[in-house]
Amino acid sequence: MQIEVLPSTGSPRTPYLEDRLVIVIDVLRATSTIVTALANGCQAIIPVLTPEEALEKRLTLPGSLLGGERDSLIIEGFDLGNSPFEYVPEKVGGRRVIMTTTNGTRAIRDSIAAPVIWMASFINMQSIILAILREFENSHRLKGIVVFCAGTEERFDLPDTLCAGMLIDALGSNVKLNDLGEAARMLYHSSEDHLMDKIRESYHGKKLISLGREKDLVYCSTPNILPIVPVVKDGEIVWLTGD
Amino acid sequence: MQIEVLPSTGSPRTPYLEDRLVIVIDVLRATSTIVTALANGCQAIIPVLTPEEALEKRLTLPGSLLGGERDSLIIEGFDLGNSPFEYVPEKVGGRRVIMTTTNGTRAIRDSIAAPVIWMASFINMQSIILAILREFENSHRLKGIVVFCAGTEERFDLPDTLCAGMLIDALGSNVKLNDLGEAARMLYHSSEDHLMDKIRESYHGKKLISLGREKDLVYCSTPNILPIVPVVKDGEIVWLTGD
Repeated sequence: MQIEVLPSTGSPRTPYLEDRLVIVIDVLRATSTIVTALANGCQAIIPVLTPEEALEKRLTLPGSLLGGERDSLIIEGFDLGNSPFEYVPEKVGGRRVIMTTTNGTRAIRDSIAAPVIWMASFINMQSIILAILREFENSHRLKGIVVFCAGTEERFDLPDTLCAGMLIDALGSNVKLNDLGEAARMLYHSSEDHLMDKIRESYHGKKLISLGREKDLVYCSTPNILPIVPVVKDGEIVWLTGD
Repeated sequence: MQIEVLPSTGSPRTPYLEDRLVIVIDVLRATSTIVTALANGCQAIIPVLTPEEALEKRLTLPGSLLGGERDSLIIEGFDLGNSPFEYVPEKVGGRRVIMTTTNGTRAIRDSIAAPVIWMASFINMQSIILAILREFENSHRLKGIVVFCAGTEERFDLPDTLCAGMLIDALGSNVKLNDLGEAARMLYHSSEDHLMDKIRESYHGKKLISLGREKDLVYCSTPNILPIVPVVKDGEIVWLTGD
């Protein structure tokens, strides 16, 4: 299986995605929050690029909530920020959330040429792995995987890369990797026993801690909490169900 | 000491360089070749962005040679390619080389706002480390180091990142790193006993081997062969000499 890991969105050489499974990773915190929202009964997440676009979109979807962040903080006038702890059943159950985050939602939109787009984080890793194995066992429509590490402000992001490394590691040795994929696997191997420390010490980890969001960091760095694979379907992110 | 590693040129968020030492790394092969050329008596390397610019520049510098590559191959009409083994004393001794490579020379030009720009590879690592220690011991004019991994076609490049990791490792634990700097150090630690294997298996390593240039790869991956620190001075790359 060929797996290409790309460091961020806005890559000048986005590979040909039309026969690829794209997996978007934004550990801190967009994909962790999306997984949590769906687990808590959110009907769908609608990713948009800007707060203005979110406000416009709501006009066509009355009853939906606005969620997301800029510079890690809730956007003025929005109902929800980007902390998974805000997306509780009482708030998001049975409702749509229109969401915009600095990196995560843009990575999702940049993947749009791919026939299958999923969202991964540590918290749903096991379900992602099982879904990948099922997908590639049953069908040959996909030629490989592209992992987008949504990153932090277009820089290399260690938490996302470690998460990509965990994913690659779980798929065994019969994988063909690009340099960043190989690096992700090596980084995961060298820190799998102290993943959370590495995430705490990362740029984005330190930033969240300085904002008093250490609880988010601990939650988002914990593997295999929720059995959810978010998938993009007709422009909305919903729970992947069996065929 | 603050050290920021950046993955490639063309970064949308090039940091403020005016009080930084920039170190450009392009292991396979531009910076390795530049070090070798200077060790073999080359008077200066003049980095330019395009073959056309190289031809124009030669009109003003009669007697100089043209060197470089596109897609790892020598450019038509040029005197030298990008293999260090071409830059022998009989060819480059006492002469200037006007050079253009896909990534390396562009990284040098992108660093131009920095007051000090050096070029590193495995082959001159010890001299680079000593020069850094001397520079930061004697003066406070520089606030930190930015390492540009010139990379391969704007992608993450494992050989360059391992080289950056070796550099960071040698500077001890009292360094403040960005995420890619921390990753570079971790990657170096996890592969320092089999660096050359990792470089062989990298995207660019495999490409050079497929072109019959394994000899170049082995040479460029060997630490501490030459006591040369190439430095940019008035637009030319020359040998750093004591103050």
